Amino acid sequence: LKKIAISVGDLNGVGIEIALHAHDEIIKFCSPIYCINETMLNRASKLLSFKPKNEMQLSHVEGAFQIQSGVIDAQSGLYSYCSFLKAIELTNSKKTDALVTLPIHKEAWSRAGIKYKGHTDMLRFYFKKDAIMMLGCEELYVPLYTEHIPLKDVASTIDEDRLTTFFINLHKSIGDKKVGVLALNPHAGDGGVLGSEESIIKKAIENANSTLDNELFFGPLVPDTAFTPHARKNFKYICAMYHDQGLAPLKALYFDESINVSLNLPIIRTSVDHGTAFDIAYQNKASLTSYINAIKAAISLNAK
Amino acid sequence: LKKIAISVGDLNGVGIEIALHAHDEIIKFCSPIYCINETMLNRASKLLSFKPKNEMQLSHVEGAFQIQSGVIDAQSGLYSYCSFLKAIELTNSKKTDALVTLPIHKEAWSRAGIKYKGHTDMLRFYFKKDAIMMLGCEELYVPLYTEHIPLKDVASTIDEDRLTTFFINLHKSIGDKKVGVLALNPHAGDGGVLGSEESIIKKAIENANSTLDNELFFGPLVPDTAFTPHARKNFKYICAMYHDQGLAPLKALYFDESINVSLNLPIIRTSVDHGTAFDIAYQNKASLTSYINAIKAAISLNAK
Repeated sequence: LKKIAISVGDLNGVGIEIALHAHDEIIKFCSPIYCINETMLNRASKLLSFKPKNEMQLSHVEGAFQIQSGVIDAQSGLYSYCSFLKAIELTNSKKTDALVTLPIHKEAWSRAGIKYKGHTDMLRFYFKKDAIMMLGCEELYVPLYTEHIPLKDVASTIDEDRLTTFFINLHKSIGDKKVGVLALNPHAGDGGVLGSEESIIKKAIENANSTLDNELFFGPLVPDTAFTPHARKNFKYICAMYHDQGLAPLKALYFDESINVSLNLPIIRTSVDHGTAFDIAYQNKASLTSYINAIKAAISLNAK
Repeated sequence: LKKIAISVGDLNGVGIEIALHAHDEIIKFCSPIYCINETMLNRASKLLSFKPKNEMQLSHVEGAFQIQSGVIDAQSGLYSYCSFLKAIELTNSKKTDALVTLPIHKEAWSRAGIKYKGHTDMLRFYFKKDAIMMLGCEELYVPLYTEHIPLKDVASTIDEDRLTTFFINLHKSIGDKKVGVLALNPHAGDGGVLGSEESIIKKAIENANSTLDNELFFGPLVPDTAFTPHARKNFKYICAMYHDQGLAPLKALYFDESINVSLNLPIIRTSVDHGTAFDIAYQNKASLTSYINAIKAAISLNAK
């Protein structure tokens, strides 16, 4: 069985309860190693009045604090960071085969003085590589050209060289898949009337196809019609220029099934495709689907 | 039966074929008046080798030219404009109860020297009112705060007064409906880390609710999770800050069913939610669903 390092996420959110509830199921197909100490695991378990039947293997992460369900808290933020760091180290040193992350809270990280905006940002720094964030499921994958930046900053990131490199790196990770590339502007700019970045995207697509000597990247596609049932028949991979452009339609269609994958890194990392869900934390009702799919995807990517 | 003025759209596209094929069906629940002359109607009908069983009532629109299926053409652009203008006049003078538009081609309008970007833009000018564009169907309606502008210009339109007025005008048109309002930035700005426009949106929501003395506007909602099956249970109306934010998930979910409604105008105008579809014009295969839904919505809005 593949060994999977699991970072527990923000303990004030739904992550740990998902891990506890899924444990008896996932040990059928992997060996999970949870990056948390026994005290904190017991506190969470007690709050939930729930314990899995089978023993959980832990990798100790120092720290102790009071869990406050649904609260943005610096201590909880720091602990989720340390759990993640431990899981990276285990996987990078080959003690585990892959890394699956449970959700952290970005503001809790910020309050804890952590300068990274999230998991992918931190991985990028740790490995000094341009990690690519991709969300999705078997039916539809959405790689993101930009991720956690304000909307007003998106247009200025559209750069021919940067986009070309992004497409080439994406191809390295996913192989010879056809990728539909979204335009930036409504109606793909309508011939320049509604914005002009489409000409840059078009050039980058041509560069990438020419470098790869293969017609794999297509577009720029009109963003609001690229996800219709008819259009989805053309592409299983739809590359978005920014976060909500790709993730709003993806989650409208495949919310429960979707997972998050980090591509273009030396290690394999997958994640659930939802946040800390503070509003329903510690109510024993969070869905396990995305987490279990994330573990399965980590194993399947590892087998490649 | 309500009288519906129908503007025939660009005659080189799918509009007129949809009107011809749907005629025998729609006369069961309305009296359509087609803004076209007999010569042009006959030319389209002949090209399609199709004629409805029941007679069609026409309102004469001057002009004659050769129909060229799938071609962007100034004459065809001009004719679609004149048909639209006639339909507005019929409805504004109460000769008809509502206006339903078939798709025009924006570039054909531009080539014909027409300065408006589309139907909504023209209505805004004609009535000197800030028309609100809303797309959707029974299950989900998406009013748009901004429409056909480049993505880079969206953030600077987020203004407290302008947004407040928009919410109040929207309420005037749709009545006491609960409306979920999307944030501008990913994760609704994540407490300011990913953008700060959410504080402005929040204030405008508070202003509108306070003016209306009713809690009708909610948010700002995290954009990429507002369209999940679970979240859609909360709001049938989801207001988007920009075009693709709202329309990509809407069309992913309800492409065939959706229609386009112009709100905040002295007349009722609905439209199909698709373009001229030049690639399949004059093949007798365009879907009638959006058009029939648009007529039904016009009648139902008229009954209010």
